[in-house]
Amino acid sequence: MRNKLYFSYHNEKIKQRAFEAIRDEQDHIGYYALPESDTTPLHRYAKQFDETIKTVVVIGIGGSSLGAKAIYEFLKPVCDLHRELLFFESTDPVNLTSQLKRISFDETHFLVISKSGTTVETFAIYKYIRSLHPDPSAYTFITDPGSPLEAYAKTIGSVVMHLPSNVGGRFSVLSNVGLLPLLLCGIDIDALLSGAKHIKESFFENGHIRPVLLTKAAYYAKNHMYYPINCIFAYAESLKYFCEWYVQLWGESLGKHQRHSAFHVGLTPIGLIGPKDQHSFLQLIMEGTRDKTVTFIKLERFDDTPAIPKASLPHLESLDILDGLPFGRLINMQCDSVREALLNEKDIPVDLITLPQADAFHIGSLIFYYELLTSLVGELIDVNTYDQPGVEAGKAILKRKLKDISL
Amino acid sequence: MRNKLYFSYHNEKIKQRAFEAIRDEQDHIGYYALPESDTTPLHRYAKQFDETIKTVVVIGIGGSSLGAKAIYEFLKPVCDLHRELLFFESTDPVNLTSQLKRISFDETHFLVISKSGTTVETFAIYKYIRSLHPDPSAYTFITDPGSPLEAYAKTIGSVVMHLPSNVGGRFSVLSNVGLLPLLLCGIDIDALLSGAKHIKESFFENGHIRPVLLTKAAYYAKNHMYYPINCIFAYAESLKYFCEWYVQLWGESLGKHQRHSAFHVGLTPIGLIGPKDQHSFLQLIMEGTRDKTVTFIKLERFDDTPAIPKASLPHLESLDILDGLPFGRLINMQCDSVREALLNEKDIPVDLITLPQADAFHIGSLIFYYELLTSLVGELIDVNTYDQPGVEAGKAILKRKLKDISL
Repeated sequence: MRNKLYFSYHNEKIKQRAFEAIRDEQDHIGYYALPESDTTPLHRYAKQFDETIKTVVVIGIGGSSLGAKAIYEFLKPVCDLHRELLFFESTDPVNLTSQLKRISFDETHFLVISKSGTTVETFAIYKYIRSLHPDPSAYTFITDPGSPLEAYAKTIGSVVMHLPSNVGGRFSVLSNVGLLPLLLCGIDIDALLSGAKHIKESFFENGHIRPVLLTKAAYYAKNHMYYPINCIFAYAESLKYFCEWYVQLWGESLGKHQRHSAFHVGLTPIGLIGPKDQHSFLQLIMEGTRDKTVTFIKLERFDDTPAIPKASLPHLESLDILDGLPFGRLINMQCDSVREALLNEKDIPVDLITLPQADAFHIGSLIFYYELLTSLVGELIDVNTYDQPGVEAGKAILKRKLKDISL
Repeated sequence: MRNKLYFSYHNEKIKQRAFEAIRDEQDHIGYYALPESDTTPLHRYAKQFDETIKTVVVIGIGGSSLGAKAIYEFLKPVCDLHRELLFFESTDPVNLTSQLKRISFDETHFLVISKSGTTVETFAIYKYIRSLHPDPSAYTFITDPGSPLEAYAKTIGSVVMHLPSNVGGRFSVLSNVGLLPLLLCGIDIDALLSGAKHIKESFFENGHIRPVLLTKAAYYAKNHMYYPINCIFAYAESLKYFCEWYVQLWGESLGKHQRHSAFHVGLTPIGLIGPKDQHSFLQLIMEGTRDKTVTFIKLERFDDTPAIPKASLPHLESLDILDGLPFGRLINMQCDSVREALLNEKDIPVDLITLPQADAFHIGSLIFYYELLTSLVGELIDVNTYDQPGVEAGKAILKRKLKDISL
């Protein structure tokens, strides 16, 4: 992947400080090591996996589902996958009932994923599904080593896998949390990890991505009060769930009390899909308050793209300029046109990420690029990138309410 | 529907001014009249409609698709619909190809919707589909009276319907643009309009919604520099596309140059779905910069909600508090808990919209409520709510690029 910035930032000391902090935190933050994971145990597990299973269901929410979903939805249209992957994430009863209609228990395996092992949504759903389909061999559990969920799984005799306890949920997609469901569907997880490793090496070993990432992170951090909103504008429908993953990663990592001040800080992520959101959100970027940065993402090559037929339509001759154009070229011209329009405004910070094509290697690169960017910005705006204390208050209130009604 | 505000605003002169401006613009802004539309012609059209058609495809983008999609996706899980509705919106070739695989031309009717009659995406897709399926009787066109598209449709002998020319795309869901596709699927469009009319009358004839809407609009406008981001946090998966509709309505209406100043202003819309986004965006709201308002939306009643079975799991006894709880009650307790947590922070403006149940009447109410709110805020922050000049620059660049390559 390539990343071209249309803005600059020249304080090299700030960049160097950020680089050193990230380099040094590798010894206790677990996600940096994931690209070098040994996938042999996963391949062994997948090889023995029941061939009659047609659907894999992830029961998990947030960091336990968004990453695998992002990659699965990106690759599904272009890969020949041999199993379907579904995600049961919500306590919404209407949604749960209609999701259940899509599966047949005989042909479904469930991956119950919860880092803490006590996520309310996940266990509300698991308890319900277990009551319909109690067979322990239909479930595999992924959790922190030593969690109550591990103890439970061992008691009922189901398989348990771990995610390293120093890998946070939103940084866990390249651990068993993401790799197991993706592998079971037939996705090339080794190519995925190679793509991540390529970005990791380029960053830590002074390749082309290091100066780009450091400049972008320093610019975002320095200007976080002026440009508090960071939009991704991705020109591929299949990147829709990548955007959702990005929203969690960015918002939950960077929206915090500062470590050494009394203040709340935060950068607000927004995921947009082109050209659709040209007809929705673009007006606000072009003419609204100048509080947004925009990162365009495009796919350089679309395989098998149909072309717009040559056919002049009476009264609609102004549209003849489209004739003969492959759709894959049109969508990239739309991306280029909007980018140029934004650049002409002069005060909207823009950059462009180009993925050569849709494959596991390049989505792995994109994932790791965004993880590194998040870590760098978090370091520079002085927050703890890896915790999420703000979600506890609502959980405590819910627990109290639940106790009150069960009395 | 009910709307409870947990903030107040007491300048009655400002509210009165906004009310009068909105009351007076009814004579030239078309959407206000839509709840009283005569639906007889639509019912006549639907009655004669080919019964072998199983799928209706909207070819349209932005205001031509988001409204119908919002309502369809909200009602689909709870209504017995007799046709499927699909949306072909993107020039993404991968998406287009996979969408086409889902339909059979013999059983599909296409609604080509373009207000201007020259939308690039819509006609790129139309030209392509027409080359595969040229029969003019398979297409109905909806456009402005007198547009080039109307002339084209008449030339080939297809049916044409209009949207009033003083109804903008993003305010058009209660015109033929939304009503026709929804009616063809079996949605009760009269109940939809009744719901909208109920809110309209309550607002203009001094019912319960007038003081609420005026206070909320005035508060948002007065504080638009302090709280420039307005989140909807909807506790129902089926409101996901309602959120997308809201994002266009709000962002494209309110992100503008001010009419009487040199400045850019804008309010940034964000759509969130609970409880999922408690595990994604909530941390940023709770602990990030205090720049967001939050509107919770919940459904009071979920029909046929399953309950969490009573079953204590070894090592997971802490989750026994969930036992016996209907999912519909759990999700609403989650909504209440997060609302309380945000209110405890004291400086996050929160309000709550309660829909008694999921039906056409109440989504019609919600739609019209948001249209009125948008008009009020636009008036108060001094923008032209109904235009979108900012999207033209990118279109002009694209046109130039297309001309260059066709030379």
